[in-house]
Amino acid sequence: MARFPGQDGSDGDAPARFRKEPDPRFWRMNRSLPFDWQLAPYDILQSQAHARALARIGVMTEAEAEEIGAGLERVQARIETPGFAFEESDEDIHMAIERLLGEEIGALAGKLHTGRSRNDQVATDIAMVVNAASRRAMRLCGEAMERLLALAETHRDWPMPGYTHLQRAQPVYLGHHLLAYFWMLSRDVRRFAFAAGSSSVMPLGSGALAGVNWPIDRDIVAAELGFAATTPNSLDGTSNRDFVIDYLSAAATCSMHLSRLGSELVIWSSTEFGFVELDEAFSSGSSIMPQKKNPDSAELLRAKSPRVAAALQTLLGVMHALPLTYGKDMQEDKEPLWDAIDTVDSSLEATAGILEDIAFDRQALEEASGDEMLAATEVADLLVRQGIPFREAHGIVGELVRDAIAGDGTLSGLSREQIAARSDALTGAGGEEYYEVLQRGSWLESKRIAGGTGSEPLTAQIAAAHAALDAVRDAAGA
Amino acid sequence: MARFPGQDGSDGDAPARFRKEPDPRFWRMNRSLPFDWQLAPYDILQSQAHARALARIGVMTEAEAEEIGAGLERVQARIETPGFAFEESDEDIHMAIERLLGEEIGALAGKLHTGRSRNDQVATDIAMVVNAASRRAMRLCGEAMERLLALAETHRDWPMPGYTHLQRAQPVYLGHHLLAYFWMLSRDVRRFAFAAGSSSVMPLGSGALAGVNWPIDRDIVAAELGFAATTPNSLDGTSNRDFVIDYLSAAATCSMHLSRLGSELVIWSSTEFGFVELDEAFSSGSSIMPQKKNPDSAELLRAKSPRVAAALQTLLGVMHALPLTYGKDMQEDKEPLWDAIDTVDSSLEATAGILEDIAFDRQALEEASGDEMLAATEVADLLVRQGIPFREAHGIVGELVRDAIAGDGTLSGLSREQIAARSDALTGAGGEEYYEVLQRGSWLESKRIAGGTGSEPLTAQIAAAHAALDAVRDAAGA
Amino acid sequence: MARFPGQDGSDGDAPARFRKEPDPRFWRMNRSLPFDWQLAPYDILQSQAHARALARIGVMTEAEAEEIGAGLERVQARIETPGFAFEESDEDIHMAIERLLGEEIGALAGKLHTGRSRNDQVATDIAMVVNAASRRAMRLCGEAMERLLALAETHRDWPMPGYTHLQRAQPVYLGHHLLAYFWMLSRDVRRFAFAAGSSSVMPLGSGALAGVNWPIDRDIVAAELGFAATTPNSLDGTSNRDFVIDYLSAAATCSMHLSRLGSELVIWSSTEFGFVELDEAFSSGSSIMPQKKNPDSAELLRAKSPRVAAALQTLLGVMHALPLTYGKDMQEDKEPLWDAIDTVDSSLEATAGILEDIAFDRQALEEASGDEMLAATEVADLLVRQGIPFREAHGIVGELVRDAIAGDGTLSGLSREQIAARSDALTGAGGEEYYEVLQRGSWLESKRIAGGTGSEPLTAQIAAAHAALDAVRDAAGA
Amino acid sequence: MARFPGQDGSDGDAPARFRKEPDPRFWRMNRSLPFDWQLAPYDILQSQAHARALARIGVMTEAEAEEIGAGLERVQARIETPGFAFEESDEDIHMAIERLLGEEIGALAGKLHTGRSRNDQVATDIAMVVNAASRRAMRLCGEAMERLLALAETHRDWPMPGYTHLQRAQPVYLGHHLLAYFWMLSRDVRRFAFAAGSSSVMPLGSGALAGVNWPIDRDIVAAELGFAATTPNSLDGTSNRDFVIDYLSAAATCSMHLSRLGSELVIWSSTEFGFVELDEAFSSGSSIMPQKKNPDSAELLRAKSPRVAAALQTLLGVMHALPLTYGKDMQEDKEPLWDAIDTVDSSLEATAGILEDIAFDRQALEEASGDEMLAATEVADLLVRQGIPFREAHGIVGELVRDAIAGDGTLSGLSREQIAARSDALTGAGGEEYYEVLQRGSWLESKRIAGGTGSEPLTAQIAAAHAALDAVRDAAGA
Repeated sequence: MARFPGQDGSDGDAPARFRKEPDPRFWRMNRSLPFDWQLAPYDILQSQAHARALARIGVMTEAEAEEIGAGLERVQARIETPGFAFEESDEDIHMAIERLLGEEIGALAGKLHTGRSRNDQVATDIAMVVNAASRRAMRLCGEAMERLLALAETHRDWPMPGYTHLQRAQPVYLGHHLLAYFWMLSRDVRRFAFAAGSSSVMPLGSGALAGVNWPIDRDIVAAELGFAATTPNSLDGTSNRDFVIDYLSAAATCSMHLSRLGSELVIWSSTEFGFVELDEAFSSGSSIMPQKKNPDSAELLRAKSPRVAAALQTLLGVMHALPLTYGKDMQEDKEPLWDAIDTVDSSLEATAGILEDIAFDRQALEEASGDEMLAATEVADLLVRQGIPFREAHGIVGELVRDAIAGDGTLSGLSREQIAARSDALTGAGGEEYYEVLQRGSWLESKRIAGGTGSEPLTAQIAAAHAALDAVRDAAGA
Repeated sequence: MARFPGQDGSDGDAPARFRKEPDPRFWRMNRSLPFDWQLAPYDILQSQAHARALARIGVMTEAEAEEIGAGLERVQARIETPGFAFEESDEDIHMAIERLLGEEIGALAGKLHTGRSRNDQVATDIAMVVNAASRRAMRLCGEAMERLLALAETHRDWPMPGYTHLQRAQPVYLGHHLLAYFWMLSRDVRRFAFAAGSSSVMPLGSGALAGVNWPIDRDIVAAELGFAATTPNSLDGTSNRDFVIDYLSAAATCSMHLSRLGSELVIWSSTEFGFVELDEAFSSGSSIMPQKKNPDSAELLRAKSPRVAAALQTLLGVMHALPLTYGKDMQEDKEPLWDAIDTVDSSLEATAGILEDIAFDRQALEEASGDEMLAATEVADLLVRQGIPFREAHGIVGELVRDAIAGDGTLSGLSREQIAARSDALTGAGGEEYYEVLQRGSWLESKRIAGGTGSEPLTAQIAAAHAALDAVRDAAGA
Repeated sequence: MARFPGQDGSDGDAPARFRKEPDPRFWRMNRSLPFDWQLAPYDILQSQAHARALARIGVMTEAEAEEIGAGLERVQARIETPGFAFEESDEDIHMAIERLLGEEIGALAGKLHTGRSRNDQVATDIAMVVNAASRRAMRLCGEAMERLLALAETHRDWPMPGYTHLQRAQPVYLGHHLLAYFWMLSRDVRRFAFAAGSSSVMPLGSGALAGVNWPIDRDIVAAELGFAATTPNSLDGTSNRDFVIDYLSAAATCSMHLSRLGSELVIWSSTEFGFVELDEAFSSGSSIMPQKKNPDSAELLRAKSPRVAAALQTLLGVMHALPLTYGKDMQEDKEPLWDAIDTVDSSLEATAGILEDIAFDRQALEEASGDEMLAATEVADLLVRQGIPFREAHGIVGELVRDAIAGDGTLSGLSREQIAARSDALTGAGGEEYYEVLQRGSWLESKRIAGGTGSEPLTAQIAAAHAALDAVRDAAGA
Repeated sequence: MARFPGQDGSDGDAPARFRKEPDPRFWRMNRSLPFDWQLAPYDILQSQAHARALARIGVMTEAEAEEIGAGLERVQARIETPGFAFEESDEDIHMAIERLLGEEIGALAGKLHTGRSRNDQVATDIAMVVNAASRRAMRLCGEAMERLLALAETHRDWPMPGYTHLQRAQPVYLGHHLLAYFWMLSRDVRRFAFAAGSSSVMPLGSGALAGVNWPIDRDIVAAELGFAATTPNSLDGTSNRDFVIDYLSAAATCSMHLSRLGSELVIWSSTEFGFVELDEAFSSGSSIMPQKKNPDSAELLRAKSPRVAAALQTLLGVMHALPLTYGKDMQEDKEPLWDAIDTVDSSLEATAGILEDIAFDRQALEEASGDEMLAATEVADLLVRQGIPFREAHGIVGELVRDAIAGDGTLSGLSREQIAARSDALTGAGGEEYYEVLQRGSWLESKRIAGGTGSEPLTAQIAAAHAALDAVRDAAGA
């Protein structure tokens, strides 16, 4: 086990200040290579830019910087070679790359580590990871939004019951329901964009904590690595992981949205609801019950949200009460981040996949939406139009509902006399309006207010969704 | 216990659909008035705007709208009267205000509840709460930033040891250290601004879930209530609490930052560090030990972060897997939000207070920063300037550190011979540079890179901080 | 604002070591009386026992101890008097009681605070709270278990579909299903019993941290206060809050169980499932939709689990990384504990209430359980009995299921030829067995294994449940 | 990609009910083999016992059961062979083992899957994992306790300052301080024992959810697999993961304890405290600062607690609101469990390691503990012994503390006149006692109360610790 490679031309030695090797029990906890190897491509890009920066200020020659850059290319190629394995003595990816570079180009490798510390190096790597993940999530949200919008358009006039408290409440169009998820994801795009912004500030140059002794032009390095700015304070630069938290916050909210979609798909897939059937390619069977076709993909969408929320919680917990600047505790930032990125990516991809071949059952939805009780508010509003305060109208219709339940279960099954017994207003002037308002078609179209389920506002909403999707594509592509 | 007041002109009755009173065991869980009474001022503003909107579309006359508006003013005044108490039978603040309005203006009160549901009503109230809390947090962050910046300026040339792993690492200026917290809070301002943005979209008009039957112009209502836009989808409008989560995410990160400040103040207040003393007005004594003066305020700053993180976790948990649209579960959004708002507000105010009369001990800081070991990197960089790769230089200095520990504990206590035994490079040309670099003054000023602790970049940083603070003031005031 | 009352015979003064009053911004965070007043009865019991202990070692006379005890009785009575209010200057309940006692009995009150610190005092109070809450939760679990068992007995032969993945899987008896919750709660009783055990160790006598200078016999005090033992280490005694965490762990698991019950009741209450109807006394209406009857009580059961889990998380977060011994951070133990206790108590009571007048729909359950597809495993097992390996049988029945879906949707609708085409084994010897096994009654009774849903093991299970309930009653009563 | 191997004698086919292969986007989320392969040894033991059980009831012959048992041995050996890889088409470990067994013994493998479902199979595997992990954690706690007790004995008379609020409070013996952690871990042993108990109830025989059609004697199987009992309800048996939560609760509390130890070691390792030095084998260097020796192992102990708490939170979140019985969501139980087990095991091992070669600095501790202010309570108690109520005495000493701070900073530096000015009681009868009580030796020994730091109770405590450790060893070995 090694602390720093190449200090005396050999690798694998303890640093000069130390005489003892790390204890295996310490090494097991301390070694981050099993997870931070994923930083390799970012670390190498960063090191190449750093070498060029050192050359610009004369710490090495241009030729040396080029040799280092080429050596790092070869290191990258080696790491990517199937069968490549790190050494058990490599502590982390930074030390591992340093060792490999030493093997490629000899002692010159040691020059790269001027004016830089692992503290600002790792912060910079992780910012790059977060930035890439945020942009990818924006794109994947966009792809799921695209599927939702397409489905909404093809199902724009399919009535279904809208629910509150999982009780049928008022009918809506399925297209309208699907767009609710579209807008959730559109907000997630803004959250991931926020994380992309907060991860676009480069810590490199902060050194261990105080800045470095070399007059490196950080703006040039930042521009080369795709950062928009540099951190204004070296202490904060090395002890800040806000950008990881920003990503995890976005990821947690996005996963929560997908869990709601998953939950509805599970419920709608039940025999009792029967509203939807997932494609076989997104379903599983049972090892014992031959008839089963389970909506496993929807259940997994639902189930992933707590683990992402826990990743967020972990990092908030790790940073809690931590004195400045870098503490080893901050090594715990990576595994929750990796896990959340992988979960969000795969969940969004699965969402798009599930929605590709999903089959809604128009008849089941329409029958359920035809439940006449859903028109109760319509009847109340009819009374309001005749001058009765809504709260009083609500009470009258409540009585009618009781009468209906006591009778054949329908509001239209009530006789004129029964209706009149509750309110004259409903039977005045022939009283046809009462029965007319119970004709189901009208209940949806009456919701003409902006954002409502009526066809007119729904058409406007779809147009707005197209514009929003275009904006997401632009932002994700940027 | 009542479900809806005033349905038949009396209050306290069950709704017409129901015959039974709520069971006390249900009522205890269900009743939200013990916490949602805080929505009252927002609910009343909203209702006044809603009455005007109903008048514009002819559901009531302008005179009726005015009477309702005036009645609501009186309700507000009653609620604010010392000794006022709600009825045990009031289920929530919306029903309570409805009942009180009925007491003021009679059956007309029932007209107000046209074209609106508690579902969009409560979502709108909470969005208003979140918006106000976000803007207030921006302002309070700004006030704490102001204190930090002022302290940074007055302590801009006080050397202190910078720490990594709570081990002395490199000296920095105290002003530089304080500014690290300034920048943390400046990022929090952006997070609260994000929450202010996501809470500036009005749900009202979404009705129970599908929109309402009345052609209310939502844009006018939104403008009257200070919203920037309206929700594009009624289902999403009633089942969305993202804006609460956005606030809680910002609050959790901000609290985490304050916990780090609190943690450092606790450590620095120990006899062993002795870097700082909190004012008596922010300290506590012991009930048994007469000599104690404890930094309770700093400990509380530190301790509050988990509860805010837990509030975030609660809401993510409540929304997890919840089918659309409104479910009663969403009533659980309020208590964690209230608690987080109160915690963030009081923590930020306490932070500003603590920093007002805080006393740093210049001598203690300076002595600690004079620890010569902190110059080890300077010596390594001296070797680099003589052409030795940094990693090799690091190894040489590591050996010198061991030699020093074995000797008098200082690097300057090593003899020329001892130094030469480790590296010729240090003793060539008279070798004075080795001893010069160990003169402490230089270690701070050598950090001339942008963002570093040297006086030059620190001056630039302070200027940037002033500009950032001005921007925060503008944003918080907007 | 006061730090310690009565130091010089007056109250409201700062302690002698301090000259300055607490800043209001500090006081707002620091003052715990708004929540720790709930400790009053425990604190008073404890103080009475402590006075007796001091008398036993001669720090005061027996008469003085009696006077203090009587004074504390009067303090308790005053606190319980309607309209009683603490002073704004009372920092916490301990100081408030000390002040009130001083008002009752004068300077003698000051003698009570010998050999005790707020650190061991508050730890003792909270242990008493946790112990009482744990025992109460055991009892309330028992009451809910009693309802579940009674319901299970009356519904022991009501068939219903059992679900996996919310897909109908195999039929079970409703009584069997209800007992699943019985056993969950029976495990929760054991968890609360664990918390009762860990909170039965008395910290009093630990002093501020090191023990006290007075030879108090802690065992006598412990016995008087109902503790089973005393803490073996004074440092641990004042810095330990494990017993709170134990309670919160039990509470979080119990709430999770109730959330599953709530979730099922919500789903089963939907029109689509129609398996159950909650009593009106546990349901709510809609402010806009007169027909609605919502299962709010079940939704709230479901929704409470995240807040209890968050309380647990808060305390784990507060204690994380806290140096020994008492830190002010530990003041944050109370509010999450109070909230969890209140939530658990009211949830368990509501559960018992919901189950009292719940109405299951036998016909709906039976029809759903008659879905012939649920017998697929029976057919596979029939093949196994004829020597075919189960996995092969599973495949054969899977094909039959496909055939049935392509046909009239039932397995019994397949002709002998269709069956034979998939497997000879099913039609050999007349092949009647295939059709017989599809007669529904048999599917439940075939589950004769211990713990299965068949009537025989179900009867045994009910007997075991009675025994378990008796044991719970004994334990909760103890 | 395969759903069930061997249905038609070949592997890799979709189950007969399905025609389509899983979509890769689904497969990525659904496939649990990347983490559940760790169940292999438990799954194989379980299958061997199941085969014997099937033979006992005649589903297969004894010879077949033996062949299956032997085949499973070969499967186990193959899996353990270096270079062995599962197929990408293996969905989970159960299906993978089924496929491998088919390769070993042909169609007979299919017989094993009679009377069992993956639902009870995986629950049984995980219970076995939890049971083994709980027992291992008990043992590892015991080993760390052993180190703590040994250190406590060798440092039983080393004075050090005890802290509250990280302020020096009263002196204690280092041995007493170390034992505080001993008792924390001893409570953790009880928590892990609780988890061992709750995981000792075998779910096997619950089938998919309803029990199985075969009269297997579950008690025999349970005994063979080391379970103490069988689950009483098949629905609960397949949908219960309480035992995982019990383990995670224990793990979260234990990790929190270790985080406090880690936190103290970090603070004590600072130059400012200088109380302790970790061995080089548990320390790290800096990549840029050659002088650094960082207590990384202690920081990691501190940092691990939030991730374990998050694992607990994840599972509570996954199970929240989940309808019975098995849902695919429950697949999310494994990764948090694996991570917590690995974290707890390695943290406890590292703790023992850290404590093996830790070096406390007797002189630094003693000097710090000699701070005379720590005796303030002693002076107050001296006044109490002269009849002054403690609260008044507290006030007098508070004034003396102020006088001392204004003077030479010591209480003993006050003149007789200064003392008399605050209280006659201190100077009566020669007044020597005041100065005597400030002789440091007495402050520790005066804490003679049970559990206090005085040598007498400390000796008793050490004896009690030995007894407790013996009990732990017995329990862990059982």
